[in-house]
Amino acid sequence: MRKLILDCDPGHDDAFAIMLAAQNLDLLGVTTVGGNGYLPNVTRNALVVLEKIGRTDIPVYPGHAGPSTKPLIIAANVHGESGMDGPVVTPPKRQPETKHAVDFIVETVMSTDHVTLCATGPLTNIASALNKEPRIAERVDALYIMGGGAYAGNWTPAAEFNIYVDPEAAYKVFHSGMPIYMVGVNLTRQCPVTPTFIENMRKLGNIAGVFGAELCDFFANGGDAHLHDACAVAWIIQPNLIKDAFLHVDIELDGTLTRGMTVTDLRFLQTSNPEADIDLTSTKKWNDSKEGSPFRGKEPNTHVAMRLDYPGFCELLLKTLRNYN
Amino acid sequence: MRKLILDCDPGHDDAFAIMLAAQNLDLLGVTTVGGNGYLPNVTRNALVVLEKIGRTDIPVYPGHAGPSTKPLIIAANVHGESGMDGPVVTPPKRQPETKHAVDFIVETVMSTDHVTLCATGPLTNIASALNKEPRIAERVDALYIMGGGAYAGNWTPAAEFNIYVDPEAAYKVFHSGMPIYMVGVNLTRQCPVTPTFIENMRKLGNIAGVFGAELCDFFANGGDAHLHDACAVAWIIQPNLIKDAFLHVDIELDGTLTRGMTVTDLRFLQTSNPEADIDLTSTKKWNDSKEGSPFRGKEPNTHVAMRLDYPGFCELLLKTLRNYN
Amino acid sequence: MRKLILDCDPGHDDAFAIMLAAQNLDLLGVTTVGGNGYLPNVTRNALVVLEKIGRTDIPVYPGHAGPSTKPLIIAANVHGESGMDGPVVTPPKRQPETKHAVDFIVETVMSTDHVTLCATGPLTNIASALNKEPRIAERVDALYIMGGGAYAGNWTPAAEFNIYVDPEAAYKVFHSGMPIYMVGVNLTRQCPVTPTFIENMRKLGNIAGVFGAELCDFFANGGDAHLHDACAVAWIIQPNLIKDAFLHVDIELDGTLTRGMTVTDLRFLQTSNPEADIDLTSTKKWNDSKEGSPFRGKEPNTHVAMRLDYPGFCELLLKTLRNYN
Amino acid sequence: MRKLILDCDPGHDDAFAIMLAAQNLDLLGVTTVGGNGYLPNVTRNALVVLEKIGRTDIPVYPGHAGPSTKPLIIAANVHGESGMDGPVVTPPKRQPETKHAVDFIVETVMSTDHVTLCATGPLTNIASALNKEPRIAERVDALYIMGGGAYAGNWTPAAEFNIYVDPEAAYKVFHSGMPIYMVGVNLTRQCPVTPTFIENMRKLGNIAGVFGAELCDFFANGGDAHLHDACAVAWIIQPNLIKDAFLHVDIELDGTLTRGMTVTDLRFLQTSNPEADIDLTSTKKWNDSKEGSPFRGKEPNTHVAMRLDYPGFCELLLKTLRNYN
Repeated sequence: MRKLILDCDPGHDDAFAIMLAAQNLDLLGVTTVGGNGYLPNVTRNALVVLEKIGRTDIPVYPGHAGPSTKPLIIAANVHGESGMDGPVVTPPKRQPETKHAVDFIVETVMSTDHVTLCATGPLTNIASALNKEPRIAERVDALYIMGGGAYAGNWTPAAEFNIYVDPEAAYKVFHSGMPIYMVGVNLTRQCPVTPTFIENMRKLGNIAGVFGAELCDFFANGGDAHLHDACAVAWIIQPNLIKDAFLHVDIELDGTLTRGMTVTDLRFLQTSNPEADIDLTSTKKWNDSKEGSPFRGKEPNTHVAMRLDYPGFCELLLKTLRNYN
Repeated sequence: MRKLILDCDPGHDDAFAIMLAAQNLDLLGVTTVGGNGYLPNVTRNALVVLEKIGRTDIPVYPGHAGPSTKPLIIAANVHGESGMDGPVVTPPKRQPETKHAVDFIVETVMSTDHVTLCATGPLTNIASALNKEPRIAERVDALYIMGGGAYAGNWTPAAEFNIYVDPEAAYKVFHSGMPIYMVGVNLTRQCPVTPTFIENMRKLGNIAGVFGAELCDFFANGGDAHLHDACAVAWIIQPNLIKDAFLHVDIELDGTLTRGMTVTDLRFLQTSNPEADIDLTSTKKWNDSKEGSPFRGKEPNTHVAMRLDYPGFCELLLKTLRNYN
Repeated sequence: MRKLILDCDPGHDDAFAIMLAAQNLDLLGVTTVGGNGYLPNVTRNALVVLEKIGRTDIPVYPGHAGPSTKPLIIAANVHGESGMDGPVVTPPKRQPETKHAVDFIVETVMSTDHVTLCATGPLTNIASALNKEPRIAERVDALYIMGGGAYAGNWTPAAEFNIYVDPEAAYKVFHSGMPIYMVGVNLTRQCPVTPTFIENMRKLGNIAGVFGAELCDFFANGGDAHLHDACAVAWIIQPNLIKDAFLHVDIELDGTLTRGMTVTDLRFLQTSNPEADIDLTSTKKWNDSKEGSPFRGKEPNTHVAMRLDYPGFCELLLKTLRNYN
Repeated sequence: MRKLILDCDPGHDDAFAIMLAAQNLDLLGVTTVGGNGYLPNVTRNALVVLEKIGRTDIPVYPGHAGPSTKPLIIAANVHGESGMDGPVVTPPKRQPETKHAVDFIVETVMSTDHVTLCATGPLTNIASALNKEPRIAERVDALYIMGGGAYAGNWTPAAEFNIYVDPEAAYKVFHSGMPIYMVGVNLTRQCPVTPTFIENMRKLGNIAGVFGAELCDFFANGGDAHLHDACAVAWIIQPNLIKDAFLHVDIELDGTLTRGMTVTDLRFLQTSNPEADIDLTSTKKWNDSKEGSPFRGKEPNTHVAMRLDYPGFCELLLKTLRNYN
């Protein structure tokens, strides 16, 4: 099983990410960051989820309360005031670790081979770790990110929430040379929370299944919801669940309309197949094309998730929930 | 037949736009603008195309040589130094009109009901006409634009050439209240120039067919090419050739990576259909969604072209070329 | 007497600019532009001022109602709803010309040698004239601008009103190669409207003097006021009234805090004179300095007004008002 | 004596800052940051200076090697490859501390009352300390900064080097609520290194005097040089050496021409004194003025240094150097 540190801000969909990781990967620790909710809340939520599934052996390290430059924005409209509204939960019995998340990440990655990072909140902690110890960029196996989008946002027309909250951190991370796997909203909107799926979880009857159903009762109530963060962890567990394209991604820090956008160079993919919006099999480079511009495409730096095997994802998640007592 | 003014910068694909418009629409005049090539060249090219198809009755009005704010960029890498390299042509016999394109547009629209505008180059002339006479925004039936993209660019990762050349003009136009139909590169890359299509033109054997084939011999040589501008005119002629979504589009003027981007609010389309990248039948508004943000979607202002009936397009274009002597 | 076209948006201080120009220069025409007030108002105000001083022989040409890109902002807080509140005036007896200001500027400059332009409002008309006929940049003797500032703004901390209203036009003008003389707020705040000066005007007893006093009663009421626009015209009439430095000036179009700033390269002036904020005698170039950076200074393009002879200015203005009947 | 932590990047002028602080203040520690030179170099240089003056009791803590977002820029053109070229020095005998500068700052400020911070390099360490422990903003007596400028830059026309290197850090600091005293290039260019001053140092004859003279031989060779960083420390030691104005300062993060500018709202100072560029006695607020705009001035957050008592400064510095053995 791959060794994982999960940096998250639970968050309903983070909860599923934790449950997937704790069972199917060697989860070395959970680190938290201000994002969907305030740091104390998301840290408590991480402890709650791990307690629900009986994995209080996995340590939780609180990290940065907010971005290093601009003030924090939270998504209370999506996740409620607690950051994980819905299920009635009791306060967690244990406390988070006293070590700072960034120190845990740096020390673990520098002392342990083949660690994979997965960040499902703003990239504040990951960027801070890179600032403290730039060599982690070469030490990690990979960084999986839930954030951004190949061609659209959700918080603004151009930007997805996690990147929008801390674009400066994202800039640092995407320029670090780390091997990056980006699960953006173009992928995660292929992963809806349907009434059928909620009932399938509830019918499992065990604690994890009912907890999952109750999370989704709130999360999906009144509109669309998607299990964004769980997709990133699922990709680590089962690589064939997602097809990706290897592309150049950069972060817009300025822009009146586009701050926080993950600007993805899709031109490499724009070949002449009128049947598909995106031809994943094409590897022909824009640079060689007649229609190329003086603004040559830069070298790919990111594996951009493009297609989800949704039934396969549902199967993995239900199987995982079923396996908890 | 709808009354049309075609504002263009020929340009290989503009040539096809002219040939489509001259036969299938009531083409009141062709206006030219610096873009694919310099103004004297694109004006000459417009005269050449009309002479080729025996339509020297259609007047050609030169407009602005370049953007009103920043210097002109041309696409010599795509269209050659002449702006329409390839076919060997003789200099046109007639001169362009002396009236400025902007004056022609303003006077025609103010004096004639139900004029449709189609712009297949930078929007410099259209913005200038709006500055001179803001009421044309309410007088025209519609403005069809080849430019921008719903979710990607071509000149840069985020921006398409025509909009990138004069973003300030595009800003003016998209904020004018005109009914806008945008044919972006997301649509036009569904309209490739294939070897088969070139041969089908050549086999027509008439002047127009051979001219079209020779244009494409150069245009498509060495890589992908698409008949961008012709798509916009084809949509006016035969509305069912293109499916669109009615969305909010705004223009990024700043942005280190995104200047000139047509920021399209695709969030309205992001519903839970994992089978389709974009569900064109959905009309559910993002604003009503659980995942909505404080950055509420703005009212749609643009009909964004999304799907092309490529065989239907080819049929229309071949039929049109065949009908010329 | 130098031949002048005055492009303005009266505006209290524009009124003094008109009165100075009509008597001391060969004023070929007044053109108007939306700025301090809306176009119909500022055009009427120009006619009113010329009627007050008996110069209905000078034609008035209305120009652009607002910027070519972004919407117009007016300064009703400074100049009142009419754009020139204060004096009770009767409607002007004559109409403005029907020719567009831009056409008047272009035609006059192309047909007449040694024309000087003076712009005391947003640079919309001047930029538009440059777009219509780029050769006017070489034809004019000079362009005097009231706008911007060498090191501060007034509308925002970084930007002065005239430039802030239409930065894109200013960008065009400052990049045009025209010989530019910039009178910014760093200069004009050396030109206060004092109670003494108002009384000196009133004591002249003639129509022009009383009119001037009444303008200032409103303009200076409740706070500081400065005769911004009059300084630019006074400089043309009497060059020794203002000391300038020849510097590079560029226009910031982006910037969250700095849009519309006239970024002036003052580094050439920063020599070791602790007694003076700015050492006007220094011509030593920053580029030769030890403290120079890789961002080398660009060639000067603007004569930046730095020091006003205020008593001399007052004398010129009072003399001019006295000379009207 | 005030308790000080000096965060610096020596740097010739930083060397004088250290020598001033070590004798005239209770210098708790020196922290270093990548800026004028690379971190290992500036750290070594700090050790060298302290050894020169016999103050190896003062600990040196290395901090961040570069900004948290964008890559580091150094000023090798000003300070040479070593960051402090000129004097021939032997390698320092002691090593820097192993504790990270940010940890030293946070721990000291949280455990010690009335600490003053002085930053004479990029604000990377100070911002990082604020991120780790936001309460230091209220704990410190003040933060003195050498950086920015009230109305001009040096590295670019609009931006000073220290702020330009890490604008995101400066943004964090200026928005933190800390009491800030800003010594910008508008002040420090009143502090030239003159041949006379260099000779006065050399004539002291002691190690410190000769060292100072040799530093300036290189620093001032071939052009203007100013003792930027020393001014900030001198102000702490002897407050009457500098007159300041209490103004609002913000940091431009975007801007094609203005990134890294300390946008200072000088409008409060622009009253009607034609004799002075800046009337320091005025406290009249722009907001109350007739010429105010809808962009109201924000509350002052920074004591902006405006006038230096240069002879007083020279006297303090010479006396200090003389007092070293």
